[in-house]
Amino acid sequence: MRRGIGEFELIGRIRRQTVDGGRVRLGIGDDAAVTSASGLTVTTVDSVVEGVHFDRAFCGPEAIAHKALATALSDIAAMAADPGEVYVSVGLPGGLAAEFAEGLADGLVDCARRWGVALAGGDTVSSPTLFLAVTAVGHVPEGEEPLTRSGASPGDLVAVTGSLGGAGAGLVLLREPSAAMTVDAGTREVLVARQLRPEPLLECGMSLRASGVGALIDVSDGLGADLGHVAGASGVAIEIEADSVPVQDGVADVARGAGLDPLDLALAAGEDYELAMTIPPGRLPAVAAILDRRSCTLEVIGKVTEGTGVRLLRDGLESPMPEGFQHLR
Amino acid sequence: MRRGIGEFELIGRIRRQTVDGGRVRLGIGDDAAVTSASGLTVTTVDSVVEGVHFDRAFCGPEAIAHKALATALSDIAAMAADPGEVYVSVGLPGGLAAEFAEGLADGLVDCARRWGVALAGGDTVSSPTLFLAVTAVGHVPEGEEPLTRSGASPGDLVAVTGSLGGAGAGLVLLREPSAAMTVDAGTREVLVARQLRPEPLLECGMSLRASGVGALIDVSDGLGADLGHVAGASGVAIEIEADSVPVQDGVADVARGAGLDPLDLALAAGEDYELAMTIPPGRLPAVAAILDRRSCTLEVIGKVTEGTGVRLLRDGLESPMPEGFQHLR
Repeated sequence: MRRGIGEFELIGRIRRQTVDGGRVRLGIGDDAAVTSASGLTVTTVDSVVEGVHFDRAFCGPEAIAHKALATALSDIAAMAADPGEVYVSVGLPGGLAAEFAEGLADGLVDCARRWGVALAGGDTVSSPTLFLAVTAVGHVPEGEEPLTRSGASPGDLVAVTGSLGGAGAGLVLLREPSAAMTVDAGTREVLVARQLRPEPLLECGMSLRASGVGALIDVSDGLGADLGHVAGASGVAIEIEADSVPVQDGVADVARGAGLDPLDLALAAGEDYELAMTIPPGRLPAVAAILDRRSCTLEVIGKVTEGTGVRLLRDGLESPMPEGFQHLR
Repeated sequence: MRRGIGEFELIGRIRRQTVDGGRVRLGIGDDAAVTSASGLTVTTVDSVVEGVHFDRAFCGPEAIAHKALATALSDIAAMAADPGEVYVSVGLPGGLAAEFAEGLADGLVDCARRWGVALAGGDTVSSPTLFLAVTAVGHVPEGEEPLTRSGASPGDLVAVTGSLGGAGAGLVLLREPSAAMTVDAGTREVLVARQLRPEPLLECGMSLRASGVGALIDVSDGLGADLGHVAGASGVAIEIEADSVPVQDGVADVARGAGLDPLDLALAAGEDYELAMTIPPGRLPAVAAILDRRSCTLEVIGKVTEGTGVRLLRDGLESPMPEGFQHLR
């Protein structure tokens, strides 16, 4: 690997704190990491960039590290794979304080521990813009299969875990503090944490592997866009009942304060990192029970039909699916 | 994965041109790629950043893609692993022309084909600074072992493939065109290509796996620094004879034109992506023969001893090891 500014502090700090284990035969410190392999490997890459995915005005280094790992690991959850290893390539501006780089390293180490993954490799480079490019690797034991976006069939139910809109509302609160007038301090804290400290649903994802779930995806772009990916990959249409979409507590109040439709936050803001899935009706009780054992709620919000695209029904009438909240990013 | 500006053009273009094969069960287009695994997996991450590792004034999009993949794959060569898959996370400035993003995609596809790797995953994000974060994955069949930095033993010889200093000289020519007065146009072209279009020595690396080579590393930071990594990881000292270091044709002329010591370019500028290794003396003929079959020369430049650090001998006297050419980066 090429040597970069801060490599010795940041990667050295990670290396000292990381315990290799499981599949990792050789971690940070050589030209590449060495892991043992079997079955299927699931690999995703995801970057977070300053000014685009986070703002140092709201986000300390630990929160940035948290968000970078969480968003990549959410893709591992969305494949129903066991979380394995993460690799992080960090672009560090020259003028960054050493404490900031140390905070990033500590955040990466803490989150890797928290989510049970090995920080098996890393690299730092000098960069005018701070970024973290994360590669997350998951594993599926021999004889088992990951879940994908392409497993939806007409007749399946569409369901989502937890509740939506919280991450979008959290971002509204961070960017437009006047919107906070409409919620109490406790709700504000919960919604902001939803934006800054997302939790990848790794346990829930893994547990769905042999559950009968058809297609699985994480809610990162926004439920409408993400179900669009499922519909496209599966060659089906998806119909969502607006009234059934679980909206997080406080989201409606924040939306009102900011002059937004709460459903826009729930369906288009994304970053909630819940899991959306399609389920053959007969398997619904079993899937709900599996998720309940992991303290995860499940709400049926629509169905899979023949056709293409995603349709939103409000009071029985087709309504445009809200799309994109680029101004929030 | 999170949706980013240009994802549809860039990743879509890659997807259309990429043929999945070998280990790739599911490539670009789901939450993660799915590959089949066995034996040992070798994984490295490496980023190239505009203004740090490349300059758009000298580098078209194909050359940037080339350099990004080459530097990551050189780490796979340095582990003596079979090249497998690459994943690329691209940060794209908002104002970038679509043609530029397409050029990046085409460059990635061409280089992946050229080097026999599958482009199994990718992600684009909006970023004020253009960057490519590459994850390269290699494989080592069951029962075999990769080569690492820690395999050097006192008594081993130290050897390097090819010749050094060309990439550094190429950068001098790009940055200080007046230095070009000292070399002919053909030499200039070769040296500049060495800087802009490095070739990872994948065939040579793989072929060394069961050759008796002790430690293996690629020359990315500069021979002095890279052998320092070997000495540190192996717990040995390394002694280099300055006169034995193979310096690429034309490097001395460029160095003279720029007021530099040619040995500084050969030992400290790095980016030549040759392979440096330690070899038990009895295995030297076999290793040289293996590399010769891949049209790769091998030069013995020193030896491994007890102790720590890297020492440079010039005319039998210890001389400071040139270190770092940060102003060239």
